[in-house]
Amino acid sequence: MGSLPLDDALFSLNPDTFAEESTAVVDFLARYYSDIERYPVMAPDAKPGSIRKVFPDAAPEKGESMDRILDDVQRDVLPGLTHWQSPSFFAYFQANASGAGFAGEMLSAGLNVVPFMWKASPVATELEQVVVDWMAGLLGLPEQFCFAGGGGGVLHGSTCEAVVCTLAAARDRAISRLGHAAILRMVVYASDQTNATFQKGASIVGIPPANFRVLHTTAESGYGLSADTVRAAVEEDVARGLVPLYLCATVGTTGLGAIDPVRELGMWLHIDAAYAGSAAICPEFRCHLDGAELADSVSMNPHKWFLTNMDCCCLWVADPTALTSALSTDPVYLKNVGSGGDVSTIDYKDWQIALSQRFRAIKLWVVLRRYGAAAMRNYIRRHVRMAEWFELAVVADERFEVVVPRNFSLVCFRLRPRLGIDDDAVDGLNRQLLAAVNASGRAFMTHFVMDGKFVIRLAVGGAMTEMRHVRDVWELLKDKANELVGGS
Amino acid sequence: MGSLPLDDALFSLNPDTFAEESTAVVDFLARYYSDIERYPVMAPDAKPGSIRKVFPDAAPEKGESMDRILDDVQRDVLPGLTHWQSPSFFAYFQANASGAGFAGEMLSAGLNVVPFMWKASPVATELEQVVVDWMAGLLGLPEQFCFAGGGGGVLHGSTCEAVVCTLAAARDRAISRLGHAAILRMVVYASDQTNATFQKGASIVGIPPANFRVLHTTAESGYGLSADTVRAAVEEDVARGLVPLYLCATVGTTGLGAIDPVRELGMWLHIDAAYAGSAAICPEFRCHLDGAELADSVSMNPHKWFLTNMDCCCLWVADPTALTSALSTDPVYLKNVGSGGDVSTIDYKDWQIALSQRFRAIKLWVVLRRYGAAAMRNYIRRHVRMAEWFELAVVADERFEVVVPRNFSLVCFRLRPRLGIDDDAVDGLNRQLLAAVNASGRAFMTHFVMDGKFVIRLAVGGAMTEMRHVRDVWELLKDKANELVGGS
Repeated sequence: MGSLPLDDALFSLNPDTFAEESTAVVDFLARYYSDIERYPVMAPDAKPGSIRKVFPDAAPEKGESMDRILDDVQRDVLPGLTHWQSPSFFAYFQANASGAGFAGEMLSAGLNVVPFMWKASPVATELEQVVVDWMAGLLGLPEQFCFAGGGGGVLHGSTCEAVVCTLAAARDRAISRLGHAAILRMVVYASDQTNATFQKGASIVGIPPANFRVLHTTAESGYGLSADTVRAAVEEDVARGLVPLYLCATVGTTGLGAIDPVRELGMWLHIDAAYAGSAAICPEFRCHLDGAELADSVSMNPHKWFLTNMDCCCLWVADPTALTSALSTDPVYLKNVGSGGDVSTIDYKDWQIALSQRFRAIKLWVVLRRYGAAAMRNYIRRHVRMAEWFELAVVADERFEVVVPRNFSLVCFRLRPRLGIDDDAVDGLNRQLLAAVNASGRAFMTHFVMDGKFVIRLAVGGAMTEMRHVRDVWELLKDKANELVGGS
Repeated sequence: MGSLPLDDALFSLNPDTFAEESTAVVDFLARYYSDIERYPVMAPDAKPGSIRKVFPDAAPEKGESMDRILDDVQRDVLPGLTHWQSPSFFAYFQANASGAGFAGEMLSAGLNVVPFMWKASPVATELEQVVVDWMAGLLGLPEQFCFAGGGGGVLHGSTCEAVVCTLAAARDRAISRLGHAAILRMVVYASDQTNATFQKGASIVGIPPANFRVLHTTAESGYGLSADTVRAAVEEDVARGLVPLYLCATVGTTGLGAIDPVRELGMWLHIDAAYAGSAAICPEFRCHLDGAELADSVSMNPHKWFLTNMDCCCLWVADPTALTSALSTDPVYLKNVGSGGDVSTIDYKDWQIALSQRFRAIKLWVVLRRYGAAAMRNYIRRHVRMAEWFELAVVADERFEVVVPRNFSLVCFRLRPRLGIDDDAVDGLNRQLLAAVNASGRAFMTHFVMDGKFVIRLAVGGAMTEMRHVRDVWELLKDKANELVGGS
């Protein structure tokens, strides 16, 4: 074997080469963060299909140095990015990066264990149990979602995964009572404000599309679901011989106290707190989780507003066996390697879609250790105060209106209707305004359509966002508004 | 806002703090790799539930220094790990880490973009198209799986995700012809050697468990599926009014040339090459993908044997619209932000389960750029030669037998039956042998049960594994065998 042509050092994770090249990447990223305000937030001139032409058609035969590769990242990759870490990124919902989140990702990637079963890395499984319990405590979730309370949590990659897994659990629980053919009669409920993820998840687990109930919301309930609407839809479906299966409620828009009848019907209640769940670490925002004790499952994404680099979604369930009944695999080649029948051992492969998984727990653990809960609360409050400031600025400018009461750090606003122009023209002006702001490269926001109205969204929450960036986007909006509709 | 109590520098990805703390993590990991042979490969004394007691019950209120956290990783985390990067890790299938894979993970985590739609980071989408085409080229896949050939690829996190997505595509294609009730009659096929992932995926998308056909394989066909077995099962199901939906073939054990009848029946054919797909970059192993032109989809995991840190699974499909029809979400708040109706624009959210995703493409791209295809081929060949050496050593020792012809870098062997002891006793000896090897901490292997026989698996493929580690595990096996059954 001594005559193998391969240079061992190239592949053997040689510690010296590893340290040198990794440090080069660290320096590259530190420079990127230093310079990030120089990049247009969203690549304004990119044309679909144009970027890939920069890259060769085939993989290289010969390797190259890391320096050369980083030069190419600088030249060919950075200009085509939408800079989610830019302090002037106010689009979608934020995806926080942080020094601690990055350190946690490095540990996860560097140790590179695959803790799909307890035995495949015991500490990874147990640390995951620890951090989901910690998070449940920070959010003030009912004891039923903690391991000590008979429930438990798991770290997924996305809300969609959490939704698919809990839908499969709810579906299989119903099938065990009613038989598999009942899948054709199962109905799932959400509001017209619920993330598209939910319909997609329902579709993936085989619920007929005709059985998705999209319940209408109105301005009167702040675009939240009302108990009456849910009850009426459920009663109508029951009268038709259908099987109400699963209600997806979204925290911040849904009045949870109002859904008692759901539980009586045996329906699975999921609370999706993907974005706003982070805010529940502050006692003043915890009211939005009132009624969580009625839920079967709750999810929130630390990778949005909790300084945890992609990806990380906490899912808690009150009845883990419902989940594992739907998702367990027990082939012989995974048996007997483990702890030999200890029923308290968790194999997280049975709590998620994939057999394999990354060591995500260490990332969330490093974030919580490095910053601590007190500073995280201030971090959340700081973004909310920035959004409050922006909301007041919008309200004070008679050309604009806030179209829905602000919750947390998201402000939805638009140029208000003006005498002499119709609704389409108002939408057109707002479209132009948003396009002008985004084309400037100085900020990036996205929009929403609410009751047919084009609405601009400002989501505050970047790890590097300071008050000056919020002031700047407001100045930018006013400038572009001046051009479109004249001064205030 | 100036009076906010928060220390801005703490959270703002301050480049100096970031560089300093990240470099500390790099140094920590470099030290870990240097010392990795000192750790027991698998934590031998861990007891379920014992590790989590080391950690406090609640998240800390106050943050701590990165140095302190790394000290705790050293003290509380490393002893509870199964060291997948140990050169003496021969269990399951390997999960390669590498310097380039790690650098790619750092870039992905550091840039922390969420390229779920083209517009959300154009270069991330286009680089993903580039690298999946590169990989298809390296594996010699038929043109139908490349974008230029009308197909295309996507990077998922796991084979299970690829299986769920293609099963949903196949199911919805059949539903569009036969109606939703046909889900109750859909049948999926795999062999008794197919990974448990497949049954789990079928279950997730709502196929009735009674409709999973687990086709028997035998030693005669090297535990691969035979065309006759598939044909007989399909014909029987068709005669019963059922709908053959999906066949999952596994490269390396399944004779693909034999499955023509499947295509004629309109069934979706998926080729799962999770582990062995990497070997197809070498022309001498490409024969195992013969017949891939008959497939609807192919998947393989660079995170196994291709130096790409977790997670990364390539999925190629011949008909992307089948995939996107099943998985597309088009809510209004994601419209018009994009390129405005360019049909050639890919939004990868419609090719996968989750709406969000990580920038995995840059990781695979850095691996391919840094090492190049020629060195990667040598890397694969080197592991195969090590496995060949081990296989010959086993064959030369009369106490042992190789129980199934070696493919690639996996050797399945056991202590052979001896006069005067029954099958259970043989299994017992092999169990004891494996337990003794693993308890030593010097190596970690897992087992499989084949035709009722307990078989030990040696999967060669660690990034740091050198010939001396393979020799060492063989010496260890012989020593333990001496203790159990005497010298050879």
